Amino acid sequence: MNSKIKVIAFDADDTLWVNETYFREAEKEFAQILSGYETQNKIDQELFKTEIKNLAIYGYGIKGFVLSMVECALELSNYQLAQKSLEKILNIGKEMLEKPIELLDGIEEVLQSLQGKYKLVVATKGDLLDQERKLEKSNLLKYFHHIEVMSDKKEKDYQKLIRHLDIHPSEFLMIGNSLKSDVLPLVVIGSSAIHVPFHTTWAHENVPKGRESKTSYVTVLNIKQVLAYL
Amino acid sequence: MNSKIKVIAFDADDTLWVNETYFREAEKEFAQILSGYETQNKIDQELFKTEIKNLAIYGYGIKGFVLSMVECALELSNYQLAQKSLEKILNIGKEMLEKPIELLDGIEEVLQSLQGKYKLVVATKGDLLDQERKLEKSNLLKYFHHIEVMSDKKEKDYQKLIRHLDIHPSEFLMIGNSLKSDVLPLVVIGSSAIHVPFHTTWAHENVPKGRESKTSYVTVLNIKQVLAYL
Repeated sequence: MNSKIKVIAFDADDTLWVNETYFREAEKEFAQILSGYETQNKIDQELFKTEIKNLAIYGYGIKGFVLSMVECALELSNYQLAQKSLEKILNIGKEMLEKPIELLDGIEEVLQSLQGKYKLVVATKGDLLDQERKLEKSNLLKYFHHIEVMSDKKEKDYQKLIRHLDIHPSEFLMIGNSLKSDVLPLVVIGSSAIHVPFHTTWAHENVPKGRESKTSYVTVLNIKQVLAYL
Repeated sequence: MNSKIKVIAFDADDTLWVNETYFREAEKEFAQILSGYETQNKIDQELFKTEIKNLAIYGYGIKGFVLSMVECALELSNYQLAQKSLEKILNIGKEMLEKPIELLDGIEEVLQSLQGKYKLVVATKGDLLDQERKLEKSNLLKYFHHIEVMSDKKEKDYQKLIRHLDIHPSEFLMIGNSLKSDVLPLVVIGSSAIHVPFHTTWAHENVPKGRESKTSYVTVLNIKQVLAYL
């Protein structure tokens, strides 16, 4: 690993703590509510389409997800779904926002070890308030200089973040579970990245075959292994 | 004004550009949709109650506002409101997210004049993506070092922001339209603040009588007057 690293950014959802699992559970509940109208498979597909269509306007995070569920439910049921069922969809969202935090294995040990040696930040997509709340509940707040909630994680978003940190791209290391969002853009802009895969990945975060082979980055199977590179 | 000021933060909505006006328009459309069930006055009150109840979980911004409108519409209509009308409510939100930016008078002149002399940032509540998009559309991006989207604007939130900026509270000046959010917390923590009132204020941002008299800050009626203090 580049020895000039000054700032290490950690992705939050599915890197520090469990998240995608809760979206999968929410999708199941949603399909259950609409089960009178379509197959689970069709419902999953339509919800995904609605989410992607709305991504540019709603961005990432639970609130946009819930708005997309309501929209998809109205359309899929041909405006027949009972109003009480629409309320259930709102409640799925509120439950998601109040989920307890389940830290991933080894995280605290890694942060303890890196603290003081690097400036540690959280770099995450999603709802600002939701992410801050999760960081607070996680008891990990004390390890981080601050949290950067990003509207997207493309190359230009990381360039903006690095400018904001007043450092050179080569002084920045990103650690996260999404190849598409936490790894590939960093390699392109001349920063370092470590990939720590999580067992579940949202379809939108999957990288088309071939895209990933052009670049160089480190993959570790447990977050604790990052210490060997620093 | 304190001569040590290094960073000047501008509130965004109703300080840089028109915003509250669009919420008032949305509330009118919402009341129109529900006009078969209640008076406009009652609808306004219930929507406000729902928003305040949900503020801790949804935070500020348009997406949380839309989710609160849907919830309020279901309850106020006793789950009778037509599904097509619920879709209309979703569309009010989408329209709000796509409004053009209307800069307030004098903003560009002030930013031009301060640029290079101070580090300028935007410090705003609301949806991150929405605020970034507005800043981009506004053509004001070039004047600012970066945008700070805050989950709330209480004393501890400003203290966090100031730590993040690696400066002393006395080196920070906040300019904004909300006495409660942009001015009073700053005076308490030892920073400077300039109040630039906007003609419309959301009920939640009103300051109880007496609360405002204990502190000292500057009020200007047009943003251009801030230049006289810097």
